Amino acid sequence: MNAIGFYKGLPIEDSNSLINLKIDRPKANDFDLLIEVKSVSVNPVDTKIRQGHPETSVPTVLGFDAYGTVVELGQKVTNFKVGDHVFYAGTNNRSGSDQALQLVDARIVAHAPQNISVEEAAAMPLTSLTAWESLFERMPLIPKKDANLGKQILIINGAGGVGSVAIQLAKWAGLKVLTTASRPETIEWVKKMGADVVLDYHKSLADQLKAVGIQSVGFALIFHSTDNYLPILAKLVAPEGFITSIVENERPLPMGLLKSKSITFAWEFMFTKSIYQTADMATQGTILEKIATLLDEKEIRSTLTVTLPGINAATLRHAHELVETNKMIGKVVLTGDFDAK
Amino acid sequence: MNAIGFYKGLPIEDSNSLINLKIDRPKANDFDLLIEVKSVSVNPVDTKIRQGHPETSVPTVLGFDAYGTVVELGQKVTNFKVGDHVFYAGTNNRSGSDQALQLVDARIVAHAPQNISVEEAAAMPLTSLTAWESLFERMPLIPKKDANLGKQILIINGAGGVGSVAIQLAKWAGLKVLTTASRPETIEWVKKMGADVVLDYHKSLADQLKAVGIQSVGFALIFHSTDNYLPILAKLVAPEGFITSIVENERPLPMGLLKSKSITFAWEFMFTKSIYQTADMATQGTILEKIATLLDEKEIRSTLTVTLPGINAATLRHAHELVETNKMIGKVVLTGDFDAK
Repeated sequence: MNAIGFYKGLPIEDSNSLINLKIDRPKANDFDLLIEVKSVSVNPVDTKIRQGHPETSVPTVLGFDAYGTVVELGQKVTNFKVGDHVFYAGTNNRSGSDQALQLVDARIVAHAPQNISVEEAAAMPLTSLTAWESLFERMPLIPKKDANLGKQILIINGAGGVGSVAIQLAKWAGLKVLTTASRPETIEWVKKMGADVVLDYHKSLADQLKAVGIQSVGFALIFHSTDNYLPILAKLVAPEGFITSIVENERPLPMGLLKSKSITFAWEFMFTKSIYQTADMATQGTILEKIATLLDEKEIRSTLTVTLPGINAATLRHAHELVETNKMIGKVVLTGDFDAK
Repeated sequence: MNAIGFYKGLPIEDSNSLINLKIDRPKANDFDLLIEVKSVSVNPVDTKIRQGHPETSVPTVLGFDAYGTVVELGQKVTNFKVGDHVFYAGTNNRSGSDQALQLVDARIVAHAPQNISVEEAAAMPLTSLTAWESLFERMPLIPKKDANLGKQILIINGAGGVGSVAIQLAKWAGLKVLTTASRPETIEWVKKMGADVVLDYHKSLADQLKAVGIQSVGFALIFHSTDNYLPILAKLVAPEGFITSIVENERPLPMGLLKSKSITFAWEFMFTKSIYQTADMATQGTILEKIATLLDEKEIRSTLTVTLPGINAATLRHAHELVETNKMIGKVVLTGDFDAK
């Protein structure tokens, strides 16, 4: 069957950085669903893994966002049947969604939304899971419409993939959302996602908050440059407040800055549950079912902005290239047949 | 009136490190209680503040644990009356309990326990507040008898002041408690406090946990050497687990070690609520009322181990000396009249 992958991390301009492959069709066991992939998205985690990858004898197949159709069930699967349309992010210790047929643990899969397009659905899983877990599992916010009225959250990098969903989920849950953006097109985008206040990250965040009458926020999400923003947030986050980050620090963090305020710092890593097979692993399926409902009910909208027809090495290289610019607004999706030539 | 304090941080062997003072009687305003102090305890925070203190023209009066009697009320006080017996930790931006009469915000004070001695009560506030907030506010544990059955907590330095209360509160709340200790007398003490498993911190904690069939714990409290224990706990704490520390790091922390497991790290600083006058400041009064009930009902016991008669510079220097050995088990309390000579 067709797949796209690589034997070695190469610059995306290199035509061998992602190549069309023929690999064996996998077989579903235990909790596995075998899924025929119809549409995939690309996230920064794809480009990061690809770039630094050592040479290997078997190819690596990435891809952590897909919409597809169930074609085979493992023996332990109870909540899906053949023919179901599903969407999922998968995990990073198995082959990803950049292949015609993919094995995914049914506990981290959900039935796809029905009122939006295949491509709009494919854009959502990884970012939705990350945003949801950041807000409602790493921090004590309530995952219910308008349940957190009166609370304020500052989202660093609201225009990125995760930020765009986090803004919407935070608004749905009743929070006032402040976020950073500086280009006219990103400012417009985060407002479209629902941000109440947009801060220019080239200027003092504290001064801009003060100008709108805000001294501190109870909650902050870091979706860019943890090293840069931790000291800034130490001043802006309220006593007993919460900071969650998804971006690994590059230098040891000056955590002592958070101590006098008893601030809590949490990491969110979307693959934790599936890598460690945690007892609450199936919550990822539950979260995605909820996301599907919110999308269908138009409580939130897909962050899809770029659709590339055909799933093959050329379109995937293009998508990686877009993500590597670090200027993507919303998500890029590849869709259609695995048309490897 | 009598008080004990200093004009400059000096080694405790120096007779000027803590001296008897005569200062003006303060007056209660707003939320203040004026309290006649009957018994005080000493915590590591006292010795740390004293040691590094620059020279000042007005004396500094420390002390963050006391039992006393209300003698005057501010205009806004509603929940206390003159003559009430109270216990409290106070805050570190006002003069402390090392004085005959002390002003304390009524919102961080509670009625004293009735079935234990004055000295046993005076030993408890600061450590109880710290342990309670660490367990039940910084981490999602439920402050109710046996409400957390099946959960496990590792407490670094269970024999210290805070550790001794944390062990008891964790046991009351239903957790299995593992703690570190290495001297025969500290091992005996933490068992008396209720620890289920005692680990020698001179040896590998991972190996010792494995020997009792434990791979990981969901919760960890650091009450000693955050720099040393963070990397160790990164391995022992379960995915999506929680670490809370009360000991400021001396070097930047390698927080990246916690990322793949999505671990949360919280600081607990008992003075945060009163320094920042947080909206939930009065929870400290509520927590102390609950502690008083738990002490009266013998659900937990006082950690008092050393009682020194008379509250004066000589007994207070002796108490500071004991705390500075870093080998104290439980708490030291000064009791009786402010008998400055």
